[in-house]
Amino acid sequence: MSVEPGTVWGVGLGPGDPDLMSLRAARLLGAAKHVAYFRKAGRKGHARSIVEGLLPADAIEFAMEYPVTTEIPVTDPAYNQMLSGFYADCANHLAGIAAGGEDVVVLCEGDPFFYGSFMHLHARLKDRVPVQVVPAITGMSAAWTATDMPITWGDDVLTVLPATLPEAELARRIAESDAVIVMKIGTNMPKLRAALAQAGRVAETWLVQYASQPGERVMKLTDANEARMPYFTIALIHGQGRRP
Amino acid sequence: MSVEPGTVWGVGLGPGDPDLMSLRAARLLGAAKHVAYFRKAGRKGHARSIVEGLLPADAIEFAMEYPVTTEIPVTDPAYNQMLSGFYADCANHLAGIAAGGEDVVVLCEGDPFFYGSFMHLHARLKDRVPVQVVPAITGMSAAWTATDMPITWGDDVLTVLPATLPEAELARRIAESDAVIVMKIGTNMPKLRAALAQAGRVAETWLVQYASQPGERVMKLTDANEARMPYFTIALIHGQGRRP
Repeated sequence: MSVEPGTVWGVGLGPGDPDLMSLRAARLLGAAKHVAYFRKAGRKGHARSIVEGLLPADAIEFAMEYPVTTEIPVTDPAYNQMLSGFYADCANHLAGIAAGGEDVVVLCEGDPFFYGSFMHLHARLKDRVPVQVVPAITGMSAAWTATDMPITWGDDVLTVLPATLPEAELARRIAESDAVIVMKIGTNMPKLRAALAQAGRVAETWLVQYASQPGERVMKLTDANEARMPYFTIALIHGQGRRP
Repeated sequence: MSVEPGTVWGVGLGPGDPDLMSLRAARLLGAAKHVAYFRKAGRKGHARSIVEGLLPADAIEFAMEYPVTTEIPVTDPAYNQMLSGFYADCANHLAGIAAGGEDVVVLCEGDPFFYGSFMHLHARLKDRVPVQVVPAITGMSAAWTATDMPITWGDDVLTVLPATLPEAELARRIAESDAVIVMKIGTNMPKLRAALAQAGRVAETWLVQYASQPGERVMKLTDANEARMPYFTIALIHGQGRRP
């Protein structure tokens, strides 16, 4: 005799301000019995911090601590192997909860299917137990809102680029697009700055740090001198398309 | 003696399911004294439909009816002129409410600063009265969630394209990007289909109609035969980047 399986919910929390969560996300959090989230070992975890005070007092928490973050380069096969084993272990734990008939809410920063870690669990769980995803406001939406300028008008093309790409590719794609968003900046700031210069678009570029969160900063690239930026930094070039 | 001005709020409603609105949006709607929204003449209006039952019974509504939609081509100077006058009139009305000391909530489908009509009011109001924007879940987030597949992994590049672009440009940009979103499809479907074929990416393309709304449909392009698609159709190609 088998129990009806529970559901693994990948719940997007949005850009960081809890007030920007969806009604569905807030309801799922408020009723959660099991809550899981990724974090760096030894930290509280950013996703967990966003929901502080919003979970039932007796929710059972499962912190999924990355075995590695920046200690090993992404290009090293050992990095992939360690992360793959880690995601498999986490997925097994969540599948066990669902198989036992209970739901579990996985906290996801931003939108779960847009460069999110939950995707690695989703791929390992979707054929084993019911999985549902709740979309959310992306960090880039919060960033362009913070600049108080629209990102795309009329027929503008928008390109979203990870700053981890090679400098020449960044420069070429930045030059060819109307509107541009660059994510994953962190230590890639000098490379991004060089690529923007090569594309001739330094003067148009804005930076937003911690969009919608405490410590939000909005500045023009030409006013920013730091070589290293916080992980939650997004660079933006606004489209200038048709406007009646 | 002058009164403290009210605020014009551009409130993103998200992709259409009211449950995907942000907590902030829901709170602003529930307390709204003045509500404004765009609609096609003679229609209820899609933005207004999303908030059915969520506004105070005594909210004062201002329907902003487009003087023209598809009767005149976008490229005709008369089109721009008519729309420009229309937006100026709407902005004047909203500025009057705010100048009188009262707030007004403008209902915006999707995210207000991402190809949204509110941008044309924002540009005309921001130096006259206080204006605030509430970001929201985009239609494209709801669309990729509906396909149950992540849109971007690792270092994937995402390109967002309006289907209104010329076929050759669509084909070139579709061929060069890892992940692709195409908006504004409607009557541009035959052109988009030709561009996807030229880029060699027909087999990877998904279509989502009415994402998160009643009548949501998810299909592969190869299973869709219609030459004309509803306005709320989004085409997607999912990135296939690094995944441990």
